[in-house]
Amino acid sequence: MAIITLLTDFGTRDEYVGALKGVILGIHPQVTLVDVSHHIPPRDIVAAGHTLRSVYRYFPEGTLHVAVVDPGVGSNRSILAVRFNGYLLMAPDNGLLPLVWADQLPQEIVRVENQMLFRHPVSRTFHGRDIFAPVAAHLSKGYPLVDVGSPMTPAQVFRLDHDEGAGISPSGVLVGTVVSVDRFGNLITNIEAAQVDQLMAGTESHGLVIQVGACRIDGLAISYCGAPVHMPLALVGSRNCIEIAVNGGSAALLLGVGHGTKVHIKEKG
Amino acid sequence: MAIITLLTDFGTRDEYVGALKGVILGIHPQVTLVDVSHHIPPRDIVAAGHTLRSVYRYFPEGTLHVAVVDPGVGSNRSILAVRFNGYLLMAPDNGLLPLVWADQLPQEIVRVENQMLFRHPVSRTFHGRDIFAPVAAHLSKGYPLVDVGSPMTPAQVFRLDHDEGAGISPSGVLVGTVVSVDRFGNLITNIEAAQVDQLMAGTESHGLVIQVGACRIDGLAISYCGAPVHMPLALVGSRNCIEIAVNGGSAALLLGVGHGTKVHIKEKG
Amino acid sequence: MAIITLLTDFGTRDEYVGALKGVILGIHPQVTLVDVSHHIPPRDIVAAGHTLRSVYRYFPEGTLHVAVVDPGVGSNRSILAVRFNGYLLMAPDNGLLPLVWADQLPQEIVRVENQMLFRHPVSRTFHGRDIFAPVAAHLSKGYPLVDVGSPMTPAQVFRLDHDEGAGISPSGVLVGTVVSVDRFGNLITNIEAAQVDQLMAGTESHGLVIQVGACRIDGLAISYCGAPVHMPLALVGSRNCIEIAVNGGSAALLLGVGHGTKVHIKEKG
Repeated sequence: MAIITLLTDFGTRDEYVGALKGVILGIHPQVTLVDVSHHIPPRDIVAAGHTLRSVYRYFPEGTLHVAVVDPGVGSNRSILAVRFNGYLLMAPDNGLLPLVWADQLPQEIVRVENQMLFRHPVSRTFHGRDIFAPVAAHLSKGYPLVDVGSPMTPAQVFRLDHDEGAGISPSGVLVGTVVSVDRFGNLITNIEAAQVDQLMAGTESHGLVIQVGACRIDGLAISYCGAPVHMPLALVGSRNCIEIAVNGGSAALLLGVGHGTKVHIKEKG
Repeated sequence: MAIITLLTDFGTRDEYVGALKGVILGIHPQVTLVDVSHHIPPRDIVAAGHTLRSVYRYFPEGTLHVAVVDPGVGSNRSILAVRFNGYLLMAPDNGLLPLVWADQLPQEIVRVENQMLFRHPVSRTFHGRDIFAPVAAHLSKGYPLVDVGSPMTPAQVFRLDHDEGAGISPSGVLVGTVVSVDRFGNLITNIEAAQVDQLMAGTESHGLVIQVGACRIDGLAISYCGAPVHMPLALVGSRNCIEIAVNGGSAALLLGVGHGTKVHIKEKG
Repeated sequence: MAIITLLTDFGTRDEYVGALKGVILGIHPQVTLVDVSHHIPPRDIVAAGHTLRSVYRYFPEGTLHVAVVDPGVGSNRSILAVRFNGYLLMAPDNGLLPLVWADQLPQEIVRVENQMLFRHPVSRTFHGRDIFAPVAAHLSKGYPLVDVGSPMTPAQVFRLDHDEGAGISPSGVLVGTVVSVDRFGNLITNIEAAQVDQLMAGTESHGLVIQVGACRIDGLAISYCGAPVHMPLALVGSRNCIEIAVNGGSAALLLGVGHGTKVHIKEKG
C-alpha cells in the first residue's frame, strides 16, 4: 500500500493540486493520496519545513512526502529526493528539507535529474505537475531512488541561514520564537520540551516563568483547560514544543502577537 | 470496504488533519478516508453536531463518522463510540452526539477506555491523533465496539442545555433560529419541514408568512430561482429545514442577519 | 481503476461535498475521488469552466469530471453528460461545458434523464447530491452513457454569450482579459501562447510590450524569477496562457488590478 502526501502553498481554489493528483494517478492509479496542507503561506519555506517535520513520522514507514513550496521554480535550483528514517521526501533544494531532518542526517540524497521520469514538455512555471508529480508516482511504485539522479552529500544541500532554533542565553534564559500560529490562535514556538528540561536540570526549581510580549505566564499547564476561561497559559503542545494558548480563545488575538514574536523562559527567582 | 469520515475544527492550514490520517493509515491502510469538513468554527460543538446530523445518512451503512471538536481535550471529559442507525460515531462526550441522534436513541454507547488501542504516549493536547485516530482505525477493521470500553446509557451522556430546537408558541407562531449560514449566504434554520406542515394542519390555509429580521417573505418557494433576481425567498433546503435565500445572492449579506437570528413563521391572516 | 473528480462552488465548511461523496461511495465504493476545487466563487460558471478546461487532461483517460456550479438548480435547466477526448464530463447545461471543449466538439452529449439512476426523493435545491452524485457513480461503474438520457447535438447546448476570448484588433493589438487571479496573486489571462506567436508571425520582431492597468512590461520572461525581486513580469503560465506575475510577490496587489482587467500586447515599435 503506497502513500504519497502533498504539502504545498498552492491553495485549494485553483486547479494546481488537481493537476498534481491527475498526473500521479495516471502513473500509479492504486496510490493513496493524502493532503497534508495546501495552505502554507505563499513561498513560506520555513513554515513548510516546520509543518512537514511535525507530521511526517505519524505516517506509516515507506510513505513518500512531497513538499512543493517552490519560489525558485524555473531557476537553476535543484529538486531533491531523500531517504530519511524510513520515509521518502521530495522538495526543492531551497532549505525546506534540512528543517525536516534537523540534526539527524538523511540516509540517501539524490538530485532529481532523470528526465525519462518527467512529464514533457516540462514547463518553467509548474514543476509540481511536470517533475514532482511524475517522479513521486514512479518512486511510489518502487522505482529505485538511486536511478532518479546523482547522489549528493548533506553538505551540498542548500540551508537557510536564518533558522536559528531556540537556545539558552549566557544569562540562563531560554529564548525561542513563535514559528506558527495555528487555526485556534495557539502560538507555537520552536522551544522543545527537552530544552525546558535542560534549563531546569540540576537546579533547585521554583518553577518557570514564560514571557511573551507583555504577558507573563507562571508555569506550564498540562492541557488547554489549565487556566481560567479566556486566560493565557503555556504548555507542551502536539509538536512537543512550547505553545502559548488561551483557554477557550485565541492567544494570537488576546496577546496581540504572532509569527516571529520572541518567547523567553526562565526559572522563577 | 471501510469508510471513515472526519469532521473537525482543525482547519486545513496546520498539520493536524494530516497527523490523524497518517495514524489511521498506519493501522488500516485500505480504509477510505473522507473529509466532511475541517472548517467547523473553533470549538463550535453545536455547528459540528448539526453538520454531522445533516450528512451522516448519505454515507453507506457501516461508515464510521469521527467528529473531533474538542475544547475539553486533556480534561476529564470522556470520548464516546456509538452505534446508531447502522453507523458508528465517535466524538468527545461534550454534547455533540446527542445533536446527531436527536430524538432517536443510539443502539449502543461505549466510553472509550481501552488504552491498548491508543497511540502512546498519549498527549494531553491532541487526542485526535492519539486516541480518536487509532481507535477509529481499529473499529474500521472490525474491532468489536464492546471491547473499546465500558457501556453507557443515553442518560449518562452529556447534553448541551442551550439547544432548544424550533417550536410553535402558544399564540400559534412557529419560532426557530438560524443555526448555520452556508457558503452561499443561505440562512439555514432549525425549523423542520414537518413543523411547518404541523403549523398548517387542520387550518383553512391562506398561506404562510416568514419573518426574519426586518424582512417579510410570503410563502415558500420550491427552488432558489423562486423569486426575482436579488430578492429573498424561503424554501425547504437540503437539510429538510427552512432556509432563507436570495436568488443569485447572499441572504446573510442582503438581510444583514446571521447565526442566532430568530425566524418566525405564521399563517397569513 | 475509476476516478471521479469534483469541482464545485460549495466551499468546504458545509456538509455539501461530504454528501456527494457519501452518495457516490454508497454506489461505487472502489472509486477514487479527487477534489479539483470546491472554492469556485459562488455561481461563477465561467471560473468553473476555465478551471476544468485547465486541468481535465492531466488525469488519466476515462476519468469522469463532475462540475456542480449550478445557480439554476431546481429550474428547468438540463444536466449534461458528455464524452470528450477520452473523458466523461458532467455539468448543468448552463454554459460551463462549452468553455471546456471550446473549439473542439465532444463525441457524445446526453441530457441526463434516467430517473432510475437518481436518488429519491429528488430535492429541488441539491441536485449535486440527488442527481449528479448517483449518476456519476453509475457512469464510473461502466453504466452506458447512451442509457443515461436522450442525445443532444452541440448546437442544442446552452452557451454563455459573454465569453469573448482574446483576439487581435484591427490595429494589430492582441487584447485579452484577466480571467483568474490565483493564490499567488498571479493574473491569469485568456491570451493563449499561440495567439502571441500569431501576433509576431511574419513580422520583423522587435519584441513585445504588455500593458496591464498602468503597468508596462517589456517582453516575456521564462520563469517567475525572470525579473528583479518585487518587480512585475509576464510569462506563459501553466495554462499555456499569458500570466502577469511579480517575482516574490502578488501582481494583483502590486498592480491593483484583478479579474476582468484588460491586457494589451503589441509589438514594440
